[in-house]
Amino acid sequence: MSSPLRVGLAGLGNVGAGVAKVLSGDTRSLAWRAGRGIEITAISAREKKRDRGVDLSAFAFEPDAMALASRKDVDVVVELIGGEEGVARALVESALKAKKHVVTANKALLARHGPALAALAERNDLALKFEAAICGGIPIVKALREGLIAYDIAAVRGILNGTCNFILTQMESTGRPFADVLTEAQRLGYAEADPTLDIGGGDTAHKLTLLTSLAFGTVPDLDGIAIRGIENISPADIAFAGEFGYRVKLLGVARTTPNGIEQRVHPAMVPIRTPLADVESSFNAVAVDAGAAGPFVFEGRGAGTGPTSSAVIADLVDVARGAIGPAFGRPAEQLLHAKRAPAEARLSAYYLRFQVLHVPGVMAEISRHLDNEQVSIESMIQRGRSPGEPVAIVMITHETSPVAVNRALKAIAASDKVFETPCMIPMEAA
Amino acid sequence: MSSPLRVGLAGLGNVGAGVAKVLSGDTRSLAWRAGRGIEITAISAREKKRDRGVDLSAFAFEPDAMALASRKDVDVVVELIGGEEGVARALVESALKAKKHVVTANKALLARHGPALAALAERNDLALKFEAAICGGIPIVKALREGLIAYDIAAVRGILNGTCNFILTQMESTGRPFADVLTEAQRLGYAEADPTLDIGGGDTAHKLTLLTSLAFGTVPDLDGIAIRGIENISPADIAFAGEFGYRVKLLGVARTTPNGIEQRVHPAMVPIRTPLADVESSFNAVAVDAGAAGPFVFEGRGAGTGPTSSAVIADLVDVARGAIGPAFGRPAEQLLHAKRAPAEARLSAYYLRFQVLHVPGVMAEISRHLDNEQVSIESMIQRGRSPGEPVAIVMITHETSPVAVNRALKAIAASDKVFETPCMIPMEAA
Repeated sequence: MSSPLRVGLAGLGNVGAGVAKVLSGDTRSLAWRAGRGIEITAISAREKKRDRGVDLSAFAFEPDAMALASRKDVDVVVELIGGEEGVARALVESALKAKKHVVTANKALLARHGPALAALAERNDLALKFEAAICGGIPIVKALREGLIAYDIAAVRGILNGTCNFILTQMESTGRPFADVLTEAQRLGYAEADPTLDIGGGDTAHKLTLLTSLAFGTVPDLDGIAIRGIENISPADIAFAGEFGYRVKLLGVARTTPNGIEQRVHPAMVPIRTPLADVESSFNAVAVDAGAAGPFVFEGRGAGTGPTSSAVIADLVDVARGAIGPAFGRPAEQLLHAKRAPAEARLSAYYLRFQVLHVPGVMAEISRHLDNEQVSIESMIQRGRSPGEPVAIVMITHETSPVAVNRALKAIAASDKVFETPCMIPMEAA
Repeated sequence: MSSPLRVGLAGLGNVGAGVAKVLSGDTRSLAWRAGRGIEITAISAREKKRDRGVDLSAFAFEPDAMALASRKDVDVVVELIGGEEGVARALVESALKAKKHVVTANKALLARHGPALAALAERNDLALKFEAAICGGIPIVKALREGLIAYDIAAVRGILNGTCNFILTQMESTGRPFADVLTEAQRLGYAEADPTLDIGGGDTAHKLTLLTSLAFGTVPDLDGIAIRGIENISPADIAFAGEFGYRVKLLGVARTTPNGIEQRVHPAMVPIRTPLADVESSFNAVAVDAGAAGPFVFEGRGAGTGPTSSAVIADLVDVARGAIGPAFGRPAEQLLHAKRAPAEARLSAYYLRFQVLHVPGVMAEISRHLDNEQVSIESMIQRGRSPGEPVAIVMITHETSPVAVNRALKAIAASDKVFETPCMIPMEAA
């Protein structure tokens, strides 16, 4: 066996401690896979002394993570600090410049600076691996980079954020409103104190842009993603979805279209008994339409110590056995600058909900506005309430352009017979 | 870029032609991934002239596949002939001895001779890759060998045979008996003229033994698998399963237990709304309990030209970029000779069906025999028929030993009030 791969570990949160625990245990089977050992030589964290459930006393401690990049006894830097700029970015750049491989879980960093960092790594024949950045333990980066490569991929659809999926499944099972369930998720540790990046769809967009790049060989294009979060999903919409045979899921979707690459993050109505509809709680899943190879679904835990550590360890073994290769599956300078498919070109069916007071009168008005825009209705639910109480009219449209449906909704919202802004959720056939 | 990887392709059925088609097309993106080109130099098939939908005239044709192993212009032999002995085995051995890598889709060959072939490959620092042997395009070999490697795997459960799953889902949706649906499956090309290996569970066992080896680092132990097929599953059992909230699936299951490794292939009752229950038609899926990394599910097309070609191409790219590594994830001489967990040690709940004539009288007798063996009943269905017609008594037991339930069934079957052999299907919580 060759000499062991020496790891400098930056960031000792749950995942960092988890990685340290695995590498401090029996690593024979990892060494067999890699053809050499893997050992931590140096670590860095904000606090040195803190019980992390693993003995770190054998490793050199660097108060400044940047020092890992210049240590002679480090072959690969594992960056678990996070953040798209700051120390994380500086460390990854310095490490690559100092001819050290990099393994990272940092989706924000790669979504913004992926191609430049990949180019830097490739110039030096170094690995830049990021399995842990997307869907935790699910080996989806490996699957797209090395597995589903024979045929052109047509589409990738994913439930990429466990916090949102936890909230939506809780809302469904309890009927409680978004804000309540979010508070509970925060209490249980499923949501951050500042949940904006998760519930607003930003985290899903970071992951999607990396999946898009891996699937289509394109430059990650974070700004090309239209993003909507789950903040405005109501228990009523989730319940009506069920009646129509759908579940509401926050999806990241990337597709090739004749007009370019389409990327979007939004709550969608997913038909029940399809794989993505059945993804529960904090689980993640990615459905890949791999052309002639058929559809695939990968499901598992998208976050947490075990799943994320598992992905970091897999990347380290790849580095140790010399499986380097370009970070995004093709050399950074070969990544395509694909056209963004204009959102208005996409036809979709829509779920629409209107809160109205007096049904007979308002139906004529709603119908007229939809008809004006040639939006036709596939099915409708309207359920009686006590006279004088607001009632929901819920419908699913046939395929139509978002321009038409938005124009119709604007006209309908202007009516004094309609309360609240009408709710619109696209349907997604996964 | 280095010189291209030169492929000798043995077997030009659908998959062979599919591989040739991919490698005859635009292979730039494969070359980027591999760091070098991949090109076919020589091919072999029983018939030279036959329209396979792809122009093969540029490649040297060898009437005898064995000749591929000795050609100077071949770096890797792709074996798509099939069969656990004969030409396939001889070709793979000769190729490895002649210092050529091997990519194969041959599960039967590897299930029987995997460790010896892996040892031969490893001695010569050669690749022996078999992604196409298990679940077609699903990159499950890669996932187990390279992805889910940080923690000990606890269990692998799979729907590994598309023919059986097609038949079972057709039986469920149409209510038609096994023999009818099998005939239809043969007509549609979903089942072979001789379907024994599929419906009898042998094909599932071949795949399971390879998954077991990859998951647990053990020597493939085909003879250690208890095998039952789907031949005796009746539409009645499938319908009753639905009433209890289950689906009947042919599963391959491998688990670590305190008594050793448990491997079994049999029809099982899988709870609906769990991932394996929802696998439809000819799809395959593998659920992996990866310890601290959590549960994972991989689903996709398990057979067919596109999916299987996709797996062969992925292996070829691995070979081309020098990602060799031991075939079963650890060196052949390090594979463990694990103890077989005795079948009688496994506790399971069971679905039982008895065909009886006169319910009140026979219930006492059935209950007595079950009670004698301390088999207790969790739930029961019995539905009235016209007097004098046989009627089914269906029950689900609590967890019990197979020894006890078999003894009880034997005693019950001996009763002259019970028609047919009682049906017994284990429940599997996936």
